[in-house]
Amino acid sequence: MSKDRVVLAYSGGLDTSVAIGWIGEQTGKEVIACAVDVGQGGEDLEVIRQRALDCGAVDAYVADAKDEFAEEYCLPAIKANGLYMDQYPLVSALSRPLICTHLVKVAKDFGADTVAHGCTGKGNDQVRFEVSLTSQNPEIKCISPVRDLALTRDVAIKYAEEHELPIETTKHNPFSIDQNVWGRAVETGYLEDLWNPPTKDVYVYTDDPAYPPIPDQVVISFKQGVPVALDGQEMSSLQIIQEMNRRAGAQGIGRLDMVEDRLVGIKSREIYEAPGAVALIIAHQNLENLTLEREQGRFKRQVEQRWSELVYEGQWYSPLKGSLDAFVEDSQKYVTGDIRMILHGGRAVVDGRRSTVGLYDFNLATYDSGDSFDQSLSRGFIGIYGLSTQLAAAREQKESKK
Amino acid sequence: MSKDRVVLAYSGGLDTSVAIGWIGEQTGKEVIACAVDVGQGGEDLEVIRQRALDCGAVDAYVADAKDEFAEEYCLPAIKANGLYMDQYPLVSALSRPLICTHLVKVAKDFGADTVAHGCTGKGNDQVRFEVSLTSQNPEIKCISPVRDLALTRDVAIKYAEEHELPIETTKHNPFSIDQNVWGRAVETGYLEDLWNPPTKDVYVYTDDPAYPPIPDQVVISFKQGVPVALDGQEMSSLQIIQEMNRRAGAQGIGRLDMVEDRLVGIKSREIYEAPGAVALIIAHQNLENLTLEREQGRFKRQVEQRWSELVYEGQWYSPLKGSLDAFVEDSQKYVTGDIRMILHGGRAVVDGRRSTVGLYDFNLATYDSGDSFDQSLSRGFIGIYGLSTQLAAAREQKESKK
Amino acid sequence: MSKDRVVLAYSGGLDTSVAIGWIGEQTGKEVIACAVDVGQGGEDLEVIRQRALDCGAVDAYVADAKDEFAEEYCLPAIKANGLYMDQYPLVSALSRPLICTHLVKVAKDFGADTVAHGCTGKGNDQVRFEVSLTSQNPEIKCISPVRDLALTRDVAIKYAEEHELPIETTKHNPFSIDQNVWGRAVETGYLEDLWNPPTKDVYVYTDDPAYPPIPDQVVISFKQGVPVALDGQEMSSLQIIQEMNRRAGAQGIGRLDMVEDRLVGIKSREIYEAPGAVALIIAHQNLENLTLEREQGRFKRQVEQRWSELVYEGQWYSPLKGSLDAFVEDSQKYVTGDIRMILHGGRAVVDGRRSTVGLYDFNLATYDSGDSFDQSLSRGFIGIYGLSTQLAAAREQKESKK
Amino acid sequence: MSKDRVVLAYSGGLDTSVAIGWIGEQTGKEVIACAVDVGQGGEDLEVIRQRALDCGAVDAYVADAKDEFAEEYCLPAIKANGLYMDQYPLVSALSRPLICTHLVKVAKDFGADTVAHGCTGKGNDQVRFEVSLTSQNPEIKCISPVRDLALTRDVAIKYAEEHELPIETTKHNPFSIDQNVWGRAVETGYLEDLWNPPTKDVYVYTDDPAYPPIPDQVVISFKQGVPVALDGQEMSSLQIIQEMNRRAGAQGIGRLDMVEDRLVGIKSREIYEAPGAVALIIAHQNLENLTLEREQGRFKRQVEQRWSELVYEGQWYSPLKGSLDAFVEDSQKYVTGDIRMILHGGRAVVDGRRSTVGLYDFNLATYDSGDSFDQSLSRGFIGIYGLSTQLAAAREQKESKK
Repeated sequence: MSKDRVVLAYSGGLDTSVAIGWIGEQTGKEVIACAVDVGQGGEDLEVIRQRALDCGAVDAYVADAKDEFAEEYCLPAIKANGLYMDQYPLVSALSRPLICTHLVKVAKDFGADTVAHGCTGKGNDQVRFEVSLTSQNPEIKCISPVRDLALTRDVAIKYAEEHELPIETTKHNPFSIDQNVWGRAVETGYLEDLWNPPTKDVYVYTDDPAYPPIPDQVVISFKQGVPVALDGQEMSSLQIIQEMNRRAGAQGIGRLDMVEDRLVGIKSREIYEAPGAVALIIAHQNLENLTLEREQGRFKRQVEQRWSELVYEGQWYSPLKGSLDAFVEDSQKYVTGDIRMILHGGRAVVDGRRSTVGLYDFNLATYDSGDSFDQSLSRGFIGIYGLSTQLAAAREQKESKK
Repeated sequence: MSKDRVVLAYSGGLDTSVAIGWIGEQTGKEVIACAVDVGQGGEDLEVIRQRALDCGAVDAYVADAKDEFAEEYCLPAIKANGLYMDQYPLVSALSRPLICTHLVKVAKDFGADTVAHGCTGKGNDQVRFEVSLTSQNPEIKCISPVRDLALTRDVAIKYAEEHELPIETTKHNPFSIDQNVWGRAVETGYLEDLWNPPTKDVYVYTDDPAYPPIPDQVVISFKQGVPVALDGQEMSSLQIIQEMNRRAGAQGIGRLDMVEDRLVGIKSREIYEAPGAVALIIAHQNLENLTLEREQGRFKRQVEQRWSELVYEGQWYSPLKGSLDAFVEDSQKYVTGDIRMILHGGRAVVDGRRSTVGLYDFNLATYDSGDSFDQSLSRGFIGIYGLSTQLAAAREQKESKK
Repeated sequence: MSKDRVVLAYSGGLDTSVAIGWIGEQTGKEVIACAVDVGQGGEDLEVIRQRALDCGAVDAYVADAKDEFAEEYCLPAIKANGLYMDQYPLVSALSRPLICTHLVKVAKDFGADTVAHGCTGKGNDQVRFEVSLTSQNPEIKCISPVRDLALTRDVAIKYAEEHELPIETTKHNPFSIDQNVWGRAVETGYLEDLWNPPTKDVYVYTDDPAYPPIPDQVVISFKQGVPVALDGQEMSSLQIIQEMNRRAGAQGIGRLDMVEDRLVGIKSREIYEAPGAVALIIAHQNLENLTLEREQGRFKRQVEQRWSELVYEGQWYSPLKGSLDAFVEDSQKYVTGDIRMILHGGRAVVDGRRSTVGLYDFNLATYDSGDSFDQSLSRGFIGIYGLSTQLAAAREQKESKK
Repeated sequence: MSKDRVVLAYSGGLDTSVAIGWIGEQTGKEVIACAVDVGQGGEDLEVIRQRALDCGAVDAYVADAKDEFAEEYCLPAIKANGLYMDQYPLVSALSRPLICTHLVKVAKDFGADTVAHGCTGKGNDQVRFEVSLTSQNPEIKCISPVRDLALTRDVAIKYAEEHELPIETTKHNPFSIDQNVWGRAVETGYLEDLWNPPTKDVYVYTDDPAYPPIPDQVVISFKQGVPVALDGQEMSSLQIIQEMNRRAGAQGIGRLDMVEDRLVGIKSREIYEAPGAVALIIAHQNLENLTLEREQGRFKRQVEQRWSELVYEGQWYSPLKGSLDAFVEDSQKYVTGDIRMILHGGRAVVDGRRSTVGLYDFNLATYDSGDSFDQSLSRGFIGIYGLSTQLAAAREQKESKK
């Protein structure tokens, strides 16, 4: 098996189809195409596989990784309430490390020492790809045909036409899109003016929340931080996410329009749709409010922020991410129970929750008869709880009189 | 001026009206009533003042503090995006320190050494009152007639009837309510079962989001972190909050149903309405996303969490709160610009933002012509940015082979 | 088995010896004494057991828990670099939860519903005892004879003499001392004036560092965060701590004189000696500097601070402590290697370290031939790394010209 | 004034002396030399100025910035207890932003659009220089002759000899040194083997702590976080640092031997000497323990860590650094008082402290007569303080029985 091989992250689209031949020409290496289905929809994997071969790949690997994505990447994001800048559910950021796991495996199986990806040189994804790759196999080399081999859009169209590649070159899509089971990301020139509102045609996963169908009540059951059933019916993680995408999407839930801080130091404007992700994380947060001890919940917020930053920035396989995961995993021991949620008109609102392992104690909380809270403790508590601030106040008062 | 005096935080309602006489009987001290208007609505301040005197207060102090509340308490909460547990905009928690400032002043002016408040012995407010009082005047003594002098509801009704106090005793309100300009908090027995959904009658500040009027577009202008105009019209802070309460309230924005961690160690279920607060904080957060440098924004999230915890827990006048305020204030230097927001059906959605001092750079962000981002830098960046994780991966690989 | 029983944390000293009879008289309950050896030295456990019985205990439980203390409490403190306020190695704070585990067990075995301890009402230890007890058995009741049953020193002496208890009452010790394998804490009236320096007689575990013996070189070997050998010789955790106490103590290492923030809201001045603890933690920190990835190490510092605060404040068995432990445990996977340390004159100085799983890469670090660091990456790294600050600078410059 | 000009950060040594001509040859630009005295010692500034001109600089700027360095850079580091990885007092990291301020000024005055520095491509200092420069003037261009223009040591020696530059070329120094008023950093090939101990010849600022002179007692007076007097004698900041360098250096205080995480992703081994810095920061920390409220002190530790990381990583002029400074500045309001410290044998030990604005309250702390702490508060405090953990324990117990 030759070492002069490159594994290409292959989407089946124009750019990566051209890249097969382009990389061959520019580097003299053989190209193996690798396509991973994380729920992006579109063509059949077999069609994609055949196209890769038709475009000159010496071999092609395709994998349906939707269940793997749901279980190994989306579930940890639910447990960690993974929201970058408190909003973005890390749609693309979660899929990159999974795709890289397959790329590393394919590179090993086919004896390739290099992996190529289709990212440009100014986004987060180039970093996520390359850091995820080298943090699984530190020996691997990375190239980006667009960034490193000057494969511009115009070059690609011309190349495809000259070589009569079996791929459409005429369609111009004004949107730059990445989508998977967890959500959908859209960028487009019109929205680079931050004052422009999104137009309706940017949305695909969600219907217009301004004209919703009747309210949809769902009961989501969690077991140790993981959703396991909808309305009492057990399902796989993938099924739950897909079903919630459908139901929350129909209500226009999970649309995001935000200015975000990219890893490469600039701010950009992004449109996301993540109906299932947003609804599931809201449900999970509400169940945690019932089941986590106060100080555990507070520190977990810091853990969540750092977790989300790390995942956003391509550090899925970093040592710190692993240690944060250990914290999160331990915290989920009792995050078990049911959340009732009304999905309607863009809102996912929790209006009921129950858990046999919650920390809410009716007798301590109630103001009615049955109250078991010992109010005689409060005076002592307040006296000592407020003491250090009171001493500071005494100092302030003394000094301000001088 | 006698030192045998107590200042009572007076609401005009049954409990504190009775407390005037009750405290007198139980402690032998004279009572001065102190009523502060923070926008809770209801009766005229003069009516309240007269009732206090009629109920036996030796004197009564009333103050319209709505502007003070908006400027000195609500604005800092906007700058700090003050949301306890990422949700609750600290409605009651913000008003307590203001009320205490007046109580301390009145106590000084009238020569009282004790302050009384109407809180029970199991909530947050008793702590907020007493810590806010002693952290302004460490010498002051605090009592709670309900908690310390056994003034139960039944006792109060009987006392009022026997003494023919000018206050209604027959009305039974199933809700325990606290409200002000910044929002409204409701507790009620029915909702102590966490699985019960809120009924429609708990809401007053907001209309039902399920049946909204047509969408309402508003442009909120900020200057150094503070909202200064709506739709181009300059207004006072109080006016902006009131106007946003009206407009966002009409759309059903700002309803919260949450299980929260009380300072006294228990979890409780709370219903809040804060239409203006929620809409203004969302707008402010979005403007910060555009105007704060990335690392500044990240650390500020930690500052915000701690700030919100401190305020929730009655530490408005603590030294740490002061130092966090200094951080926040410095961070707001360039939080100036306009946010366009669509208020509709329970949602406050930002769909446009502009700032002459934002950090978004169109030329760096665009993928169209005019792109000034130097993509040749990326390779070097990724190589070094990913290096420490890559070294850890090399270790992992080496060890896993053993 | 009767439920009218109290388990008393018994030291064998005057106060708790008197407490046996005193509790009986005041509460009418039978007292079971429980003495746990955590390395505090002094009398033999059997002598203590007999004295308890002689003083009226219906039964007495004694346990040598030194190994348990070293392995289950001191080792986690090493892994977490447990230093409250960056200094105090949590000497007493670590022993309380262990003692409480035994008290809870004895209470269960003997059918007692109450546990008594000898702490006063103004220190940390009362909180540590009671929170450690109720966080293992939430049904248990706690009493402190000194705080709750008015058992003052004078009362105790009189009681002992009247009842002819087999315990010395004449010796007056100016020092209040708590000591165990992990260190020694001393309080004394003379040092309550913060300007007074410690006198030589407060120290027992350490010799004067100003007149040290010749330098003592020790090599400490760690395996996954835990010290396993000294100078190549494998030992138990207890042996390592004891041996390091001896060797570092002879050099005057580990003396602390600090003003600390107590849990009960006041500041106090404390003298500690913890030669082994201080030397072992320094060694562990140095090994982590070599073996933890940068971001992992940074976040771990925050984890360590919170861990130390929790342990100081009696929350050993709290949910957050458990989740922090999970983080720490995960981080220690590669904290394996040797630290060479010179113990001399109060200093424990690391002057050599080696690890087969360290992240130091000689070829990347060296400035000599063999350098494998690709300096051509730096330009790109700096350009992007500094970009967000550069954009902020451009704004600053533009605005300052206005 | 021509725009074809480069300002060179000039040390007077071989490399930068050669760089004057080398930059001219390689870029065709005129070179202005800029030398800033931050206390690095060595030659007179006038000698350095003349050498720059003799080596071909079109102009030369020299500045004695020692006072500026002490006041504007070292004092903030004291207030923030600036220690990277809890150890390194940021010696070089503090001087870079100051030097860059002068470079930016000189570039503006002389109409240069580029600044050159003598750093290599694998260290922190290249990043600190370039980020400090572009975060003061975002338009400025940066070059490093060593990294970008292939000016190796051998090339430099040959060039100097061929051009008969007035600089010694024969002396080979095995140490790479950077030093200033705040301390001294040494790297050398021998120590790149982490198991090798430092040899005695690496130290210049400190004498051997193993053979100290008699103990030296010093009283350091602080005012709002800043040292203002030694032993009662008021001095400038620079004088205090210099005097403490002398006195603490004579006792061998402030030697550091550490493995540190560089900004460029690798670990390196560093030797530092910072006698004055270490002693002053220890004194300052001890005064803060007495004067900061507990929660303020705890949060400040997080601020300090982030502050130190930012400064280490060249972000002195970043927005976050500014906001952290605001926090720190606010916290120092009452950090006023005296610290008595014994300097001896490598140790700087505080054995007395006093402050008229401290938060230590003798009457609350004492166990003797005069105790004003109300112990009756403790029971209530503990009951509520431990409640949330107790509830979690009840859950744990219930679940473990299943």
